[in-house]
Amino acid sequence: MPELRKDPIVDRWVIIAKNRAERPLELTEGEPARRTSTADCPFCEGHERETTEEVLAVRTAGTAANGPGWQVRVVTNLYPALLPGAGAFSPNAANLFDAQPALGAHEVVIEHPRHLLGTSDLSVDELTGVLLVYRERLAALRALNRYLQPIVFKNVGAAAGASIEHAHSQIMALPLVPREIAAELAAASRYHQHNRQCLYCQLVADELSSGQRLVHPPSNRPEIGFVAISAYAARTPFETWILPAEHQSDLEQLSAAGARELAAVVRTVVAKIDSALDRPAYNYIIHTSPFDTFENDHYHWHIEIIPRVTKTAGFEWGTGLAINPVPPEEAAAIMRALHLAG
Amino acid sequence: MPELRKDPIVDRWVIIAKNRAERPLELTEGEPARRTSTADCPFCEGHERETTEEVLAVRTAGTAANGPGWQVRVVTNLYPALLPGAGAFSPNAANLFDAQPALGAHEVVIEHPRHLLGTSDLSVDELTGVLLVYRERLAALRALNRYLQPIVFKNVGAAAGASIEHAHSQIMALPLVPREIAAELAAASRYHQHNRQCLYCQLVADELSSGQRLVHPPSNRPEIGFVAISAYAARTPFETWILPAEHQSDLEQLSAAGARELAAVVRTVVAKIDSALDRPAYNYIIHTSPFDTFENDHYHWHIEIIPRVTKTAGFEWGTGLAINPVPPEEAAAIMRALHLAG
Repeated sequence: MPELRKDPIVDRWVIIAKNRAERPLELTEGEPARRTSTADCPFCEGHERETTEEVLAVRTAGTAANGPGWQVRVVTNLYPALLPGAGAFSPNAANLFDAQPALGAHEVVIEHPRHLLGTSDLSVDELTGVLLVYRERLAALRALNRYLQPIVFKNVGAAAGASIEHAHSQIMALPLVPREIAAELAAASRYHQHNRQCLYCQLVADELSSGQRLVHPPSNRPEIGFVAISAYAARTPFETWILPAEHQSDLEQLSAAGARELAAVVRTVVAKIDSALDRPAYNYIIHTSPFDTFENDHYHWHIEIIPRVTKTAGFEWGTGLAINPVPPEEAAAIMRALHLAG
Repeated sequence: MPELRKDPIVDRWVIIAKNRAERPLELTEGEPARRTSTADCPFCEGHERETTEEVLAVRTAGTAANGPGWQVRVVTNLYPALLPGAGAFSPNAANLFDAQPALGAHEVVIEHPRHLLGTSDLSVDELTGVLLVYRERLAALRALNRYLQPIVFKNVGAAAGASIEHAHSQIMALPLVPREIAAELAAASRYHQHNRQCLYCQLVADELSSGQRLVHPPSNRPEIGFVAISAYAARTPFETWILPAEHQSDLEQLSAAGARELAAVVRTVVAKIDSALDRPAYNYIIHTSPFDTFENDHYHWHIEIIPRVTKTAGFEWGTGLAINPVPPEEAAAIMRALHLAG
């Protein structure tokens, strides 16, 4: 059983998960991509028996579960960092050594039946379908009424921690609010208390008015639109945030029309990053409100795209600060200037 | 001029340093070490003109500065993330977009005149000399009365962020207390207020009494001794902490005898990690008190050794939690069982 442990000094939890050591490692840093033939790939159509049973699939009518005929497929991670269970997460701050069972959900979203590699290889339609699957799974995980914090993320390339090449993302539901999200929530709550305004809405307004870090403006229907900006304090070159142009606290509030808008923006931004940095490894992360504060007025869900072209060395581990050699305004200008076909 | 920027949402500073993009990259992940001949190495004896002028060197009597004849040599980093200067660090929490000049020190400690690669390649005598150089430089940086937080770290191997192979470590003096150290200080202060006891001293006592995560016990002279433990909530396999057995808040309080004890412990622990994980890339980080709280009763300086054998993927970036496949008790048992020659 994986275990959540709190550091005895700081409020930093770690998942100790022995089973994760058994993951097959398909990707190795420095080696070219496309090293796996589709015949070996457990995520390709026709290989459904090599995964766990599907939790959800978008399928052609009449096809059977756990067989071919799907467009997007969600399965439980074969090497989960969290296991399902109904136990309470009850940390004891008085204990120097505190461990809790790592209860939660850990799912894999296989984004395409064919052996595609990155987000920009998906069509807008296909990516829209993936985003709507995120929404559906988050709603289902919320309905369990067991876990506290969902997170969606994607690892592309070995340097970004991907172990399998086939385009996939992951959804986790955690029994606690992890430190990075807790810090955002605390700052957003504090700001809202003082200003009766969402901090992220203010950020969007400021970035639209200055324009210097703007990567992609919202469409002319702001109620379903998204804004892409170079993060002001970007931790890596070309770190880019995509946020709903108007206030929305939860990914689950995404409409079908909004999903299509978002898919177009994500695809464009990733294609520009791919072009500017020659298809780098990257992560994207979706931060959304904890399950227990649905549709709040202070938090604002968003996507953080983090190209993994710099290394985290002793300085970064020891301080929590990043060193970024590319000013965000320059990254934004480069991305704005790129006009990619199709 | 590099710039410190605060994230508009959370209290997370980033150094934007364009000059860092110009660093020559000697090491590439996945490639074998020892790819550089000593003839090309700017850190080898005889190549002193390829670095900045030395700040400090331990030299054979009669040899001239910036020439051969040294045992340990400290120079300013050619691609500094921080630049010297006397300006005040005065963040404005009311600004969404806050940037400050990145003033501070960024030095490189070249640990040996020959082309050695890792800490376990140094003799105990040699490593003692390096530790005493850390002490001397920290005292000198404190005396400037300009900066707030020192940090010492070492990157070994490309996966740990090293760009140069020759054994070296780095010393930085920051104008702010970075988030990871601030979190430790806050927890230690709080614990001391409630318990009139140093949190780390309590941790050492508990780990010595349980023994299950003990890697190296203190010598029979605890006043100069050091304890090595597997971190309870280790972020990576074999993350190991080395702490003074008795209370000491600052690296600068290290005695010459203590430095020799510490060198022996560090060398043994790194050699065991090298053996257990087949010479992995690793970082070590020294956390010590901010300059303005010298010799306090609540904080406890220490070394964190972090083998870089796992990847940080989207989950880790998005949550701040790590996933570690090796239980710390198993790592400690493996290290205890290893008896290495010399």
